[in-house]
Amino acid sequence: MSVIYDRIALIGLGLIAGSMSLAIRDRKLANEVVGYARSQQTRDTAREIGLCDRVTDSLAEAVADADLVVLAVPVGAMGDVAAEIAPHLKPGATVTDVGSVKQAVIDAVQPQLPDDVHFIPGHPLAGTEHSGPRAGFSTLFINRWWLLTPLPDSDPQAVDRLAELVSAMGAKCDRMEPGHHDLVLAVTSHAPHLIAFTMVGVADHLRRVTDEEVIQYSAAGFRDFTRIAASDPTMWRDVFLHNKEATLDILGRFTEELFTLQRAIRMGDGQQLHDYFTRTRGIRRGIIEAGQDTEAPDFGRVATSGKSD
Amino acid sequence: MSVIYDRIALIGLGLIAGSMSLAIRDRKLANEVVGYARSQQTRDTAREIGLCDRVTDSLAEAVADADLVVLAVPVGAMGDVAAEIAPHLKPGATVTDVGSVKQAVIDAVQPQLPDDVHFIPGHPLAGTEHSGPRAGFSTLFINRWWLLTPLPDSDPQAVDRLAELVSAMGAKCDRMEPGHHDLVLAVTSHAPHLIAFTMVGVADHLRRVTDEEVIQYSAAGFRDFTRIAASDPTMWRDVFLHNKEATLDILGRFTEELFTLQRAIRMGDGQQLHDYFTRTRGIRRGIIEAGQDTEAPDFGRVATSGKSD
Repeated sequence: MSVIYDRIALIGLGLIAGSMSLAIRDRKLANEVVGYARSQQTRDTAREIGLCDRVTDSLAEAVADADLVVLAVPVGAMGDVAAEIAPHLKPGATVTDVGSVKQAVIDAVQPQLPDDVHFIPGHPLAGTEHSGPRAGFSTLFINRWWLLTPLPDSDPQAVDRLAELVSAMGAKCDRMEPGHHDLVLAVTSHAPHLIAFTMVGVADHLRRVTDEEVIQYSAAGFRDFTRIAASDPTMWRDVFLHNKEATLDILGRFTEELFTLQRAIRMGDGQQLHDYFTRTRGIRRGIIEAGQDTEAPDFGRVATSGKSD
Repeated sequence: MSVIYDRIALIGLGLIAGSMSLAIRDRKLANEVVGYARSQQTRDTAREIGLCDRVTDSLAEAVADADLVVLAVPVGAMGDVAAEIAPHLKPGATVTDVGSVKQAVIDAVQPQLPDDVHFIPGHPLAGTEHSGPRAGFSTLFINRWWLLTPLPDSDPQAVDRLAELVSAMGAKCDRMEPGHHDLVLAVTSHAPHLIAFTMVGVADHLRRVTDEEVIQYSAAGFRDFTRIAASDPTMWRDVFLHNKEATLDILGRFTEELFTLQRAIRMGDGQQLHDYFTRTRGIRRGIIEAGQDTEAPDFGRVATSGKSD
């Protein structure tokens, strides 16, 4: 594998940027990876663990002479970061992001950037429930989709070069309209996350069932929800605030479906329930066949030894 | 480990009964495990794979001289099975079940059984999304909770003996009132399952987003839901029909919470969202500390090689 960019700057040093840094450096896809984070503590941790080749103490230093700048901050912060780096970008550099929403990021970032840089928004569909500079690992993107949403006037060669980097980190690359991206992600990610947050919140609020029981007996379906609901609160707050219409649209559909099933339960309509569950089983099949998950039952979990009581 | 029951009869040969058979025979907890299933095909498969010591072609034969009879059929079938086996049970035998609801099973089964058997309902909180005689494995119950809901007049020694079997298969045993069981499980399992079914159903119905995209980009949170939604349709139809009140109660709470969050999104109330998500993250911590899940990010999944496109 060969060097794709001379110097890459990662702005924000959480799970995604950390994983990018490790992936890029492992595979030598750049000559230098520079990192910056707003908090001193994060910068110190990044230095301590050797996350990047260099960690700077200012945004301006980080992006100086960078050929690729990656905005890996919460989507609500993208606009301010773009405004601050704009005067320091090298002409001809590429700026990309890894935010979970696209249109709102474009609206905040594009007006801030000079005309002589290539802005190519992107979104890696990868992550875990952990956050921060220690959370990343170099294999995070393997076989995961990384969506690029180039703008109408994006330079094709700049887009191809970014796609090459994405592929070199192990991801599968696809291109999409920003608005369509936001709708697809509302279905596959944003609404499911909100629903998981809600289910866990319901369990938290119950008084007739003690929290300990909910936790203790949580192998029964609930724990899958809790993993999703442990995601970074800041990131998700910003996702929902910045993909409002599509999210509310999908939630509306969701509640319609839920009331339909709820009614079937109340009416004792077993046939409707059985038909519905049979159909949903088929979708799971489709996901395994598309190579997006493991066929091993229970996600291949192994029995934990557990604590003694 | 020593023999706990001389002869154990497993009625219904799906994931749970199959796993019990393998666990019991592996650890020599019985002298003989006899199996029966209603469908000829299941009985043939069970014989083919040597699931039990013996597979009978009738219910009466299966329970003859059995010291423990395990009802492992869908909860809607429990009453009929109980009626059919009642005349053939050995005096002093224990009858238990593994159904996901307890009160409805008690209401269906108890009136059918003679007075000289010990009826001790139970529920192992374990399972995968697979079904049928080939789905079981002997380690399914390790470190999982197995709840027993003895009746007021249950013989303590009979309960202790069943608890011993449960523990010997690796599970942690707890006792609980049947009604309370149904409420706890409505929270930790039944409502989450219905919600997962619904989310997958919503994705299935959408027209503006193609099904392929939903499947293709499903690593983004959706796939966790789909595993749950791939559960056995018959089992779940019966669970919802037989734990109606508690399930509807929890669903009502769920929709109240969901509308609260939905409103926060529509109003742009980032603080409320952030506070909510911060609280739900704490519950995930509690589950890992209770030893009920792995700390490995993303459930310890490894990257799949995936199919080439």
